[in-house]
Amino acid sequence: MSDNKKSPLVKILRVGLAGLGNVGAGTFKILEQNAKLIEQRTGTRIVVTAVCARNKTKDRGIDLSKVTWVETPESLIDLPDVDVIVEVMGGEGDPALSLVRGTLQKGKAVVTANKALLAYHGMELAELSAQNNAPLFYEAAVAGGIPIIKMLREGLAANRISGLYGIMNGTCNYILTTMEKTGRDFADVLNDAQNLGYAEADPTLDVGGGDSGHKLVLLSALSYGCQPDFQNLSVEGIDRLSADDIVIAGEFGARIKLIGQAVKLDDGRILQMVSPCLVPKTSPLAHVDDALNGILMHGDFVGPSFVEGRGAGEGPTASAIVADLMDLACLRTCGAIRPVFGAEPHDLKAAPSASRDDWTGEFYMRLVVHDRPGVIAEISPVLRDHKISIESLIQRGRSEDQPVNIVITTHETTGASLRQASEKIELLPNVLAAPLVLPILKI
Amino acid sequence: MSDNKKSPLVKILRVGLAGLGNVGAGTFKILEQNAKLIEQRTGTRIVVTAVCARNKTKDRGIDLSKVTWVETPESLIDLPDVDVIVEVMGGEGDPALSLVRGTLQKGKAVVTANKALLAYHGMELAELSAQNNAPLFYEAAVAGGIPIIKMLREGLAANRISGLYGIMNGTCNYILTTMEKTGRDFADVLNDAQNLGYAEADPTLDVGGGDSGHKLVLLSALSYGCQPDFQNLSVEGIDRLSADDIVIAGEFGARIKLIGQAVKLDDGRILQMVSPCLVPKTSPLAHVDDALNGILMHGDFVGPSFVEGRGAGEGPTASAIVADLMDLACLRTCGAIRPVFGAEPHDLKAAPSASRDDWTGEFYMRLVVHDRPGVIAEISPVLRDHKISIESLIQRGRSEDQPVNIVITTHETTGASLRQASEKIELLPNVLAAPLVLPILKI
Repeated sequence: MSDNKKSPLVKILRVGLAGLGNVGAGTFKILEQNAKLIEQRTGTRIVVTAVCARNKTKDRGIDLSKVTWVETPESLIDLPDVDVIVEVMGGEGDPALSLVRGTLQKGKAVVTANKALLAYHGMELAELSAQNNAPLFYEAAVAGGIPIIKMLREGLAANRISGLYGIMNGTCNYILTTMEKTGRDFADVLNDAQNLGYAEADPTLDVGGGDSGHKLVLLSALSYGCQPDFQNLSVEGIDRLSADDIVIAGEFGARIKLIGQAVKLDDGRILQMVSPCLVPKTSPLAHVDDALNGILMHGDFVGPSFVEGRGAGEGPTASAIVADLMDLACLRTCGAIRPVFGAEPHDLKAAPSASRDDWTGEFYMRLVVHDRPGVIAEISPVLRDHKISIESLIQRGRSEDQPVNIVITTHETTGASLRQASEKIELLPNVLAAPLVLPILKI
Repeated sequence: MSDNKKSPLVKILRVGLAGLGNVGAGTFKILEQNAKLIEQRTGTRIVVTAVCARNKTKDRGIDLSKVTWVETPESLIDLPDVDVIVEVMGGEGDPALSLVRGTLQKGKAVVTANKALLAYHGMELAELSAQNNAPLFYEAAVAGGIPIIKMLREGLAANRISGLYGIMNGTCNYILTTMEKTGRDFADVLNDAQNLGYAEADPTLDVGGGDSGHKLVLLSALSYGCQPDFQNLSVEGIDRLSADDIVIAGEFGARIKLIGQAVKLDDGRILQMVSPCLVPKTSPLAHVDDALNGILMHGDFVGPSFVEGRGAGEGPTASAIVADLMDLACLRTCGAIRPVFGAEPHDLKAAPSASRDDWTGEFYMRLVVHDRPGVIAEISPVLRDHKISIESLIQRGRSEDQPVNIVITTHETTGASLRQASEKIELLPNVLAAPLVLPILKI
């Protein structure tokens, strides 16, 4: 890195990237696009200095001209300008296994997205990490966009976990959601998903439950302090489900989801199981739709805790990898104390602020009025004068003696327009109180 | 701590606890009850060595006999056997302010649950923290059971946040949910909530939106790298809502929630606003019920991320405080590298495992059968022999030529019983395939 010495106060963390598929390219993109943000939040510049990938000429939309290419993943380990290896090749065996082993043995840090590798070789690699004081981070290995490893290992670490239930395979959840929406059968929807690129040509690992199992093993180890062991698991996939099952489950007030569960039984044993389950519609897991992931945990002090987000794909998985790199950067540079508000105080700007007046969108306005002819004719010109367009108008109740409610919803406008109109409307003779104005969120 | 020297390998973190209300007592309880777990996960014993509270004789269900009592909070700072101050007194001014200031000035760490303090004095305290290299942690200040500070500051730190929307006041959410369930009006439900202890005698800070505003200011600073500034906020409470509003919102496919939002506008300004909003029922925020909290964020790489849990109360808030203490312990003892699977490899046990056979609960079983008289009479004795009690039985379609589905749901039984019964049912002459068996979750 030629300009390393320009800014002696900012430290640098140099990444060797093994794998340049979607996730590898995404990692490169975040580190470029959000470089300044990342530097502000960690006091460290994080840069990819070397890569190893199969195809050197493929256009990935990233500029690799300043990066060293090596021919084999293991060549990354000994490069002097590589501080940490990011392993995003995948696969439970070599070359990923040799790369991660070799890196940890040299005392270098590893960040990986490889759930299969950890599900099969987690114990060996954890021991290598401890022996060599070499960090091994894997936030990206489970539910990419959800920082679930951090939640279990740090955020909820004061709790004894009694149960964990997760929707951790986006392909299966997409298929189940589509079966429900369209009434079509499994094979039919899978076929479409394959044509659309949402499912692999060989979908076994996803629809058979194995991928969910790899992830469950890791979360179970973190939750219960037990050895990750993929053999120690009951796994069943979604391939035997029919459209009928989904309809009938609906009649029972439930939806069918592929759930990985790790539950502590009363006798202290730990049940680890992946299988389609009926989930009551009252559970937050029942509302995890399409390719989203969701995880529900129960802790002895915290109670239930639920988290939902994108589980896979370039952006979410790369976001998790860069979060791990940022943790690593803080470890090296500032003793891991993150600045109180995420950036050093002198970097915190007094934000150019906006107020309720600047809120833009649709609004709900309720008026309390005397129910007399002409009320609407009084109100509507005021709205028109403030360029507020009415989407709907509802009057509730009819009574000559009692005040009645009129509810107006608007098309998109601003808080300022609504405020100004409300101030005038409040003064109209038949309007009995200041209008109640609520934004309508589209989230 | 007299037995500090017994185990020279285990480090110790000594806590001075200012405040012994619910949260203070809860913190004490977790540190006692989960002491072994906490030590395993951090390599550190975390113990309360000194406390300051108003009433020395009150029974809090905890044994304070080994703890030093001091008369004023600030006396905690200089005690030689206090490494970190936990501030759970509350209130934006003194004594909390002086205590936190004084502790940071001495270079000691602070863990606080005090959102008001940080909303008003956050910048000053962040500067003191940076100048004195004294950690200031506040996970418990926002949405107790949800590790939202950690999510924003670490888990999603690689992302530019574009919008954050939170339900962050359990009292308001409880009132709104109850208004919806019962059709009663605000004042009526508030009155009940006060009698039940769910709302304060002076409810202004909750129902007026101020408490949500304190929390929003902190999340906004973390999301956008801007200075926390409570003045810079539009705040409106829930006190003007009527039962009618909630019904009409429902007709529009929405629910009314008190939402704190921090949104980046196109011109770069940051809109920070607390107000009741209509939230579409398709949004995960619409399903945050009763006293729960929920927060939805959008990041440029991660996309939408949603998290839900208990926002207040003894257990969840204390869980957050102890998580901060554990972070601090790791900072001091192991350079903040958490063990790969949450405990050192030699502490990971091969869990005494359980299988699908051990799953206990209700089941859904679908059979594909020839639609002939006597089919049910063939199946039901098999279930009876395995002590499986039928909760419902549905037959779908009638056709002499085509196979039909029979769906049985059971009362509570075990996976083993279902497996054994299924193996026998599969062999019955009119049964055409292995039964499909799905657990019915109650989560």
